[in-house]
Amino acid sequence: MSNEPGAPALGTKIIRISEAHEHVGKTVTIQGWLYNLRKSGKIVFPIIRDGSGMMQCVAVKNNLPETVFEALKGLTQESSLTVTGTIRAEARAIGGFELDVAEAQIIQHVSEEHPYPITPKEHGVDFLMDHRHLWLRSRRQHAAIRVRHEVIKGIRDYFDSHGFTLVDTPIFTPAACEGTTTLFEVDYFGEEKVYLTQSGQLYNEANAMAFGKVYCFGPTFRAEKSKTRRHLTEFWMVEPEMAYADLEEIKRVAEDLVVHLVGRILENRREELKELERDTSKLESVKAPFPRMSYDDAVKLLESKGSEIQWGGDFGNTDETLLTQDFDRPVMVDRYPAAIKAFYFQPDEQRPELALGVDVIAPEGYGEIIGGGQRIHDLALLEKRLAEHNLPREAFEWYLDLRRFGTVPHGGFGMGVERFVAWMCGLEHVRETIPYPRMLYRTRP
Amino acid sequence: MSNEPGAPALGTKIIRISEAHEHVGKTVTIQGWLYNLRKSGKIVFPIIRDGSGMMQCVAVKNNLPETVFEALKGLTQESSLTVTGTIRAEARAIGGFELDVAEAQIIQHVSEEHPYPITPKEHGVDFLMDHRHLWLRSRRQHAAIRVRHEVIKGIRDYFDSHGFTLVDTPIFTPAACEGTTTLFEVDYFGEEKVYLTQSGQLYNEANAMAFGKVYCFGPTFRAEKSKTRRHLTEFWMVEPEMAYADLEEIKRVAEDLVVHLVGRILENRREELKELERDTSKLESVKAPFPRMSYDDAVKLLESKGSEIQWGGDFGNTDETLLTQDFDRPVMVDRYPAAIKAFYFQPDEQRPELALGVDVIAPEGYGEIIGGGQRIHDLALLEKRLAEHNLPREAFEWYLDLRRFGTVPHGGFGMGVERFVAWMCGLEHVRETIPYPRMLYRTRP
Repeated sequence: MSNEPGAPALGTKIIRISEAHEHVGKTVTIQGWLYNLRKSGKIVFPIIRDGSGMMQCVAVKNNLPETVFEALKGLTQESSLTVTGTIRAEARAIGGFELDVAEAQIIQHVSEEHPYPITPKEHGVDFLMDHRHLWLRSRRQHAAIRVRHEVIKGIRDYFDSHGFTLVDTPIFTPAACEGTTTLFEVDYFGEEKVYLTQSGQLYNEANAMAFGKVYCFGPTFRAEKSKTRRHLTEFWMVEPEMAYADLEEIKRVAEDLVVHLVGRILENRREELKELERDTSKLESVKAPFPRMSYDDAVKLLESKGSEIQWGGDFGNTDETLLTQDFDRPVMVDRYPAAIKAFYFQPDEQRPELALGVDVIAPEGYGEIIGGGQRIHDLALLEKRLAEHNLPREAFEWYLDLRRFGTVPHGGFGMGVERFVAWMCGLEHVRETIPYPRMLYRTRP
Repeated sequence: MSNEPGAPALGTKIIRISEAHEHVGKTVTIQGWLYNLRKSGKIVFPIIRDGSGMMQCVAVKNNLPETVFEALKGLTQESSLTVTGTIRAEARAIGGFELDVAEAQIIQHVSEEHPYPITPKEHGVDFLMDHRHLWLRSRRQHAAIRVRHEVIKGIRDYFDSHGFTLVDTPIFTPAACEGTTTLFEVDYFGEEKVYLTQSGQLYNEANAMAFGKVYCFGPTFRAEKSKTRRHLTEFWMVEPEMAYADLEEIKRVAEDLVVHLVGRILENRREELKELERDTSKLESVKAPFPRMSYDDAVKLLESKGSEIQWGGDFGNTDETLLTQDFDRPVMVDRYPAAIKAFYFQPDEQRPELALGVDVIAPEGYGEIIGGGQRIHDLALLEKRLAEHNLPREAFEWYLDLRRFGTVPHGGFGMGVERFVAWMCGLEHVRETIPYPRMLYRTRP
């Protein structure tokens, strides 16, 4: 890249700012963008970001060619530049190091007539969302996306190290499982309709019978006309599924996963949580065991707290917030009325009107982060349920096969990444937990 | 689960077959399905699979209640059962261990009238694909999916440990980038048309300016009416993108990733490769440096080998096979005619009719596994290209912003998971490299 803009001075090492601690006293080159600039007489202090961190540079007029010093002094926000100089530990500086500038090369000076549109002043959410491709450069957005990365990595590492096989389930699915109202339809070569997956669960069940323990992890889609702060039309979900598992085992794994992830975020993403002004004491308390209660008891608890819920109803956002109010960690509610759960839930043996489902509800109003349960393993019962729900039998023949050929008790759950990240980051709206959120009225950029 | 079918005998530990080596001499319970059954007088040898491995069990008539022995003796393929007994090292047995049966519980005896449809005899591909939900239990399919898992994990670990941030790009994309003929269209609340992503690259470029080095990794979609053995309508692709990178750096990373992945598969998935009868010597030779050649030289080489290609044309499958014929590792071809590459390629400085793109072509006829290059970083040139390609300027305003606000040389590449897995596994058709393949005429199950 010797003739390209951005090439370092001959013989110096290009480093990323996150590696500065390994190069104290050395002359290195960093490549980045101007985040901020302070001037003090014959010294300018450009703060440079390179995507891995921030570095305050010290450019002294007398040590630099005049053109270089003047170029730095007049530099505009988000201009791109490379800087070569010596790294010095400096406890007061952002990141703990400073770079004494020996050379600098401006790659692009952002024009004064058309300056970088996102400034330290307040912007409206629509403006920021329209500029999402630039907004991601901001420190808070940066922090949220890095927490997201850590959550996703944590999820995969958890399942990979606990004997689960990753078996990706398809995005294009042929039949509508639970009605077509919240499904996105795709024109498949003008020949047939296919739908975008809402959940990989049915396929997961087949995969669990092949691999014992599996997970899928990809984008899922819901065409819900909801505009709440918890809804995206496109979101990422991890779904583990286990053969030879009952509701208690499913709850154990869900709890263990959440505890593992929260611990990992606290360990690896302290700086990001600080940037997000997250009260980490609320996360420190997330330890096993989580409070467990039946749906019956949850309804009683809600009634005692003044909710208008009646037995048989589903919890609203307010109910979920009330339910976790007295706890410092997520609450697990199980054994819901079968009538409000999907057709495939295994009924409780003692009280068949209950489904062996469990939801994990996060504290601080973050609501349901996990939903799952035990699936029906009996062929006749599943056939009965399909008929009761008026589901097209033929489309489910393959799913019924799983009950014909070596059926076993099994189950699993789904966890939405964005809600989990919102909880970790303390963000009010899920739209900041995914790089390019898709919502009812938002498909751009 | 004490009253549920599948519960172990009191006090014994449930293990997975892959953990057998830790329990030699111990009494344990395994939970699985009957893979095969051999009988020899008063002994039956059920081979059980549990998704983690296979275990030959030894059930001796005199040591078991008669009902249990008879049940095992009459067991049908894929019946589900749990077996409790003592593990013994046995070099001749599959997996290296045997289990002496003390107890067994049949969870489901698959009926003789409606037996498991996939038998050791030959089945046609359509039949197997229609039964994909069961076919995944077969040993070869199992092996391919486990190689796939390792490839995906290897890709993520590679980028996570090389300073890349995972920034997921959207599936729903508003505008068609390169014509709409190969895009799947989605009805978005009846209001507007959105398309399923073909590549996260344009978003990746924005993300690289925010994070320096990024990757996205998710499903991508192409509505190509191709029926070749290399085409899926839904496939997974990883796409890294780097700021301050030129073509040489992009080639270096692509090469390093491939070498890393092949090494990892050879290290961790030997058994699966053996199951797939893969000639691993063809993978052992995949080391850096890969042969590098220009498009010009590639065309000359092809001509010398009798291809009818002419300068300016794209390589066909046969050309790709010819190109790698004399090499024991992938070949990197760069500097293609700009006319056959997308609008965003940076032109070669000396010969602007060439695009700074690179393809990595796998040996043994597996074809292009990586395509990428350096992107245009100059605003005026990019505007010119958009006009030349008759692309809707307004839809690209956000993309142009990246050249207005701190533009830098940058680039990256895309690698399709399924083609890579096919190469690793030595599979002729990509349909076996993804759990539920979607093709022109295949959207089920």
